[in-house]
Amino acid sequence: MSFERLLMPIGEAMFTQRSVRKFRPDPIPAADLRLIVEAAVKAPNGGNHQIGRFLVVTDRDKIRDFAKLYHEAWWAKRRDDHGWTGPQDVPPGEKNYRAAMGLADEIGTVPAIAFAFAVPPGWANSIIPACQNLMLAAHALGIGSIPTTLHATVIDRFYTMFEVPKDVSFHFCIPLGYPAVKYGPSLRKPIAETAYLDRWGSAISW
Amino acid sequence: MSFERLLMPIGEAMFTQRSVRKFRPDPIPAADLRLIVEAAVKAPNGGNHQIGRFLVVTDRDKIRDFAKLYHEAWWAKRRDDHGWTGPQDVPPGEKNYRAAMGLADEIGTVPAIAFAFAVPPGWANSIIPACQNLMLAAHALGIGSIPTTLHATVIDRFYTMFEVPKDVSFHFCIPLGYPAVKYGPSLRKPIAETAYLDRWGSAISW
Repeated sequence: MSFERLLMPIGEAMFTQRSVRKFRPDPIPAADLRLIVEAAVKAPNGGNHQIGRFLVVTDRDKIRDFAKLYHEAWWAKRRDDHGWTGPQDVPPGEKNYRAAMGLADEIGTVPAIAFAFAVPPGWANSIIPACQNLMLAAHALGIGSIPTTLHATVIDRFYTMFEVPKDVSFHFCIPLGYPAVKYGPSLRKPIAETAYLDRWGSAISW
Repeated sequence: MSFERLLMPIGEAMFTQRSVRKFRPDPIPAADLRLIVEAAVKAPNGGNHQIGRFLVVTDRDKIRDFAKLYHEAWWAKRRDDHGWTGPQDVPPGEKNYRAAMGLADEIGTVPAIAFAFAVPPGWANSIIPACQNLMLAAHALGIGSIPTTLHATVIDRFYTMFEVPKDVSFHFCIPLGYPAVKYGPSLRKPIAETAYLDRWGSAISW
């Protein structure tokens, strides 16, 4: 597989990546999906045992069916975490949650979803680096994404829906599509607050 | 922070990334370490709660002290997994393990180590994407890396050594340095074996 089309400078890709929560329904070319999956699996993984698996879903009916589970899972998580039971409980100032709530309503129209799994022993650290490659490569092709998870309440039905064996570990549900809105830069704390030098709590001085 | 120096095309960075297990001791410029940490924290994380933390260690004495723990941890893991107790037990054909064994002997001479943690709730999926950014950005600057873990037997002493609070979750130990050997491309199974379309086990046809 040639990687010539992934030309975006890596700095630009990382510093402009955004979590996209509103997508256009336009389909993603199969060649692009293939390229980002090929880029994904090049990420490091424990002992090169390659336990990571991607399930890419582009079938519109399956995405619509899955969307019901996603909506249920999203609200189950909000109930657990905040006691929210419906849109009226989500504060207007919680912009990320309001946008995520919108995605839970509309995920049935995205053109593709990449689900990330790992076969036994199922380690997250052997598949999540590949997920970040997948999302960065997508971004370099103009395709937005967001890493999301699923509440336990829907997992059995989710596995049945896609014929996933029970001993496989689920890690991420990543909707993919062209962004429907323009995004500014992501906001992060200064690294003086989140990175330390030589011992915990000692701010980087460089 | 300007990302202008991270110019490597993202495809090249992903498709040429290798797990480096043999490093030169040459120091890494502080500006480069800063740039790769800044790139790292731009990765997506759950709800932008930014629970990820990096501890970058460049102090040569601390790295030498830590190297003893790393060596002990590496062998404890091999004993658990394979019953290996010393170099004589590691088959000559196990090239990755032989190289990893070499790293366990020599990690005390690497110029920097980035440890990845998450504060409560400690989710791996809110820090591991940042680790992949860190390793890709390093690679774009000619700096090699490999994501490694630590056996439970050394964790308490490791936390004490770097004053890490007990409620923090440890995720990766990433040695950083200029590669001491040339590496060919990484080997991966064809994606027909590790990625599926629309349902588990259905090979991608594109």
